Amino acid sequence: MADKRFFDYKGPFRLRELAEISGTTLHPSADAEKQVKDLSPLDRAGVDEIGFLDNPKYIVSFERSRAGACVARERHAAKAPHGMNLLITENPYLAFAKITNHFYPVDYASFKGDIAQTAVIDGTAKIGKNVWIEAFATIGANAEIGDNCHIGAGTVIGRGVKIGNDCFISNNSSLNFCLVGNSAIIHNGARIGQDGFGFAQEKGHNVKVPQVGRVIIGDNVEIGANTCIDRGSGPDTVIGDGTKIDNQVQIGHNVHIGKHCIIVAQVGISGSTQLGDHVMVGGQAGMTGHLKIGAQARIAAGSGVGFDVAPGESVGGYPAIPIKEWHRLSFSLKKIAEEMGAKLKKEKNE
Amino acid sequence: MADKRFFDYKGPFRLRELAEISGTTLHPSADAEKQVKDLSPLDRAGVDEIGFLDNPKYIVSFERSRAGACVARERHAAKAPHGMNLLITENPYLAFAKITNHFYPVDYASFKGDIAQTAVIDGTAKIGKNVWIEAFATIGANAEIGDNCHIGAGTVIGRGVKIGNDCFISNNSSLNFCLVGNSAIIHNGARIGQDGFGFAQEKGHNVKVPQVGRVIIGDNVEIGANTCIDRGSGPDTVIGDGTKIDNQVQIGHNVHIGKHCIIVAQVGISGSTQLGDHVMVGGQAGMTGHLKIGAQARIAAGSGVGFDVAPGESVGGYPAIPIKEWHRLSFSLKKIAEEMGAKLKKEKNE
Amino acid sequence: MADKRFFDYKGPFRLRELAEISGTTLHPSADAEKQVKDLSPLDRAGVDEIGFLDNPKYIVSFERSRAGACVARERHAAKAPHGMNLLITENPYLAFAKITNHFYPVDYASFKGDIAQTAVIDGTAKIGKNVWIEAFATIGANAEIGDNCHIGAGTVIGRGVKIGNDCFISNNSSLNFCLVGNSAIIHNGARIGQDGFGFAQEKGHNVKVPQVGRVIIGDNVEIGANTCIDRGSGPDTVIGDGTKIDNQVQIGHNVHIGKHCIIVAQVGISGSTQLGDHVMVGGQAGMTGHLKIGAQARIAAGSGVGFDVAPGESVGGYPAIPIKEWHRLSFSLKKIAEEMGAKLKKEKNE
Repeated sequence: MADKRFFDYKGPFRLRELAEISGTTLHPSADAEKQVKDLSPLDRAGVDEIGFLDNPKYIVSFERSRAGACVARERHAAKAPHGMNLLITENPYLAFAKITNHFYPVDYASFKGDIAQTAVIDGTAKIGKNVWIEAFATIGANAEIGDNCHIGAGTVIGRGVKIGNDCFISNNSSLNFCLVGNSAIIHNGARIGQDGFGFAQEKGHNVKVPQVGRVIIGDNVEIGANTCIDRGSGPDTVIGDGTKIDNQVQIGHNVHIGKHCIIVAQVGISGSTQLGDHVMVGGQAGMTGHLKIGAQARIAAGSGVGFDVAPGESVGGYPAIPIKEWHRLSFSLKKIAEEMGAKLKKEKNE
Repeated sequence: MADKRFFDYKGPFRLRELAEISGTTLHPSADAEKQVKDLSPLDRAGVDEIGFLDNPKYIVSFERSRAGACVARERHAAKAPHGMNLLITENPYLAFAKITNHFYPVDYASFKGDIAQTAVIDGTAKIGKNVWIEAFATIGANAEIGDNCHIGAGTVIGRGVKIGNDCFISNNSSLNFCLVGNSAIIHNGARIGQDGFGFAQEKGHNVKVPQVGRVIIGDNVEIGANTCIDRGSGPDTVIGDGTKIDNQVQIGHNVHIGKHCIIVAQVGISGSTQLGDHVMVGGQAGMTGHLKIGAQARIAAGSGVGFDVAPGESVGGYPAIPIKEWHRLSFSLKKIAEEMGAKLKKEKNE
Repeated sequence: MADKRFFDYKGPFRLRELAEISGTTLHPSADAEKQVKDLSPLDRAGVDEIGFLDNPKYIVSFERSRAGACVARERHAAKAPHGMNLLITENPYLAFAKITNHFYPVDYASFKGDIAQTAVIDGTAKIGKNVWIEAFATIGANAEIGDNCHIGAGTVIGRGVKIGNDCFISNNSSLNFCLVGNSAIIHNGARIGQDGFGFAQEKGHNVKVPQVGRVIIGDNVEIGANTCIDRGSGPDTVIGDGTKIDNQVQIGHNVHIGKHCIIVAQVGISGSTQLGDHVMVGGQAGMTGHLKIGAQARIAAGSGVGFDVAPGESVGGYPAIPIKEWHRLSFSLKKIAEEMGAKLKKEKNE
């Protein structure tokens, strides 16, 4: 049961209703009228609860689970324990997300607040309808905030910044020199629009290169806590529609990220690098500047990418190489070291 | 001498007293009544000052030091310069920490403040005794703050958050959807309890998975500046008692960290990974999701861990392998490259 | 054209004037009286606009550009398209920086503000002339702020902190236990002066080591968004004059960074490591503690440095080795893996 201090419970629900809202199919043996009281991980679930099996790593938990109901793939149905009622789908994670949202709805565009008396809003700023601005937020000159937005406590919206409708900007974040689309979610401590890191050399000193571009953020973008996105040096830094960025990601000036990408935590993307649509980047991966990463490319966690990546290609390693090669290399290095160690020893003795 | 603008000096002390409070033994040749005025690194210390030798890398500084007193191990005593008074212990770092605290006591649970008039505290929040809340802090509905806590300027404590006794929460940090034990130290800009990074795929779009868990933080935990800890997706994210986390660490949803662990700066731990007790993780190391890292395991700085690690095992490298193998591999790779380069060249010429 | 919501346009200018302020030479075929209306990347520039060619990777854009003017090196002049007016210099990036600043001047020391009524300034703090302090900033007891400084919204300046003249401290940042020189630029969310990460072990518990040093920041230093610099444990943490630090960099206690260094985003430098002057560190590189990195050394992006680096040396890789060796190793590993794979297969069959 989710903690009621934080989440609003809407259950229980009949299995029939959960199948409907999640787009899943009731297994022939399932009881459509079964009442489900709550969500639970499979290893802790009881007979009134529903879990899900997506990652095959958890198949043993599934086989041993006491959950009364479970979302799973057709091919795992035969392994379900006796008495478990199955909702069948090829995308259990998606279905369970919908079920979770049904039990504990979170609507970032909804709000219960008002404009705090302690917020400082410049007289020239335009504020839309139904906007919630929390304590100690500041809205600069000529900034524009769309309808149904939520601006968190202590957040700074700089002069001229434009934010679309239905955006959730959380606490203690800083937005400057940027234009944000609709339905953005920007988490605590995100830093958007500060100077890109550009210095020219003059007689052994670092001379600051003025950064006169912006950050342009599309619709339905999510940006994680303490993530930094620098504004362009002249061209803009661009984040495409539907792209989701995790915590502590660093995006340099003039970077152009396509639509519907996934960028996991602590990734660093150097200046002027371009990512196509639907690119996936694993945690802590890094890219040098001025690269082209094709659409649908996948970059493994921890990789260091120094060359362009073709559309659809998967790469890994440091320096990054095609992912299959990297797996083979990783596997063989231990053997190579042993063999070469033995060889060197033998040579020494001869 | 520590800067008096920032620290309160309580010295001088007799060597006898310093031995007592630090749990060290006076070397037979030491003068128990010698007065020590201050702390200093060995290479800068004078005759009235005390230093310490823990890392053997600094043995030359020790041999050449003019320090009047020094905390050191028995086995280094013979190398002490003439006139240096030794306090002997097998744990010089710990002893020097105690001596430092004696000269310049810092008590995070103590405070000199009050509840700032500019703080915004919801009428339903419960605030303990002797609590210091600084300017522009906000405390949400139904939040609970224990006795003797210090909440820094601009910090946001979300609705329902519960904080134990004797906690020090520094400036500009954000705590949501979390329960914190006693005697926690949470540094500037830490982000605790925001949404985990979970998206399901639907027709090429990233669909947000609701995150309905919490962050549960034990007693005596320290969390570094700008570190992020996401709340669980349904299960909780858990940080065990006595665990110390450095700056800019990223901890994903559902991660479970045991007791008395050390997690150095810029580490990233992906979702649902579990660490046992007393695990040590070096800086910038990364772990993929759903791993089990056994108790007492050690992960070298910069490693990328993709597989489970057994209790007590040490691993390093990217991808991480047992540490001894990794050191041998690192050492031999240069030779391998040379030899193979020569071989390839020869083949080419034949 | 830079967005007028954010930048003030001062153009147009004659080419003659741009040559003069940028220290470049008009190419013999160029029209000194040509009017330039704006800046633009070469691939988008029109006949009234000026671009630059520095990175040879963009030579094709240069050859195909419709830009009316361009800053370039002498050796590329022959490849300029017909009608392009050239400003010649061996440092196009620097010259273009100066031209950008001429079109859209940004002066961090200038300001248009005042001391916000909502700022909380301790009665014992000393504030210089012409200081702009934004909403919800807090200035602690005995802090000193020099002339012409700008302190951003929600920023916390702790007790005793001293800041020189002409400093720009942006929003939501935290400065404690530190002394800052003149003309510093500190970006949003930077955390300076919190406790270093030092723990001694006692009976399986982590005992906090008091951190009684400071952070000393020289003149003309720039510090990126969400970067963390811990204060010293006793000695100070020092950042030399003219050093530029990008976003999300982590600098441990007692680190000593020389003058005019460049530290790119997400770098981590462990405690007590020393960098000489003019060191360049690529993004996401890490250094273990207690190292000496010589002046003019260069550390490649993503490297993990575990040993001292000699002055002027370039290193790369994890673990880091001389850069040429690392490039050769990276190149040969694929071949090694293939060959060894074939060999192992053959042995298996015999």
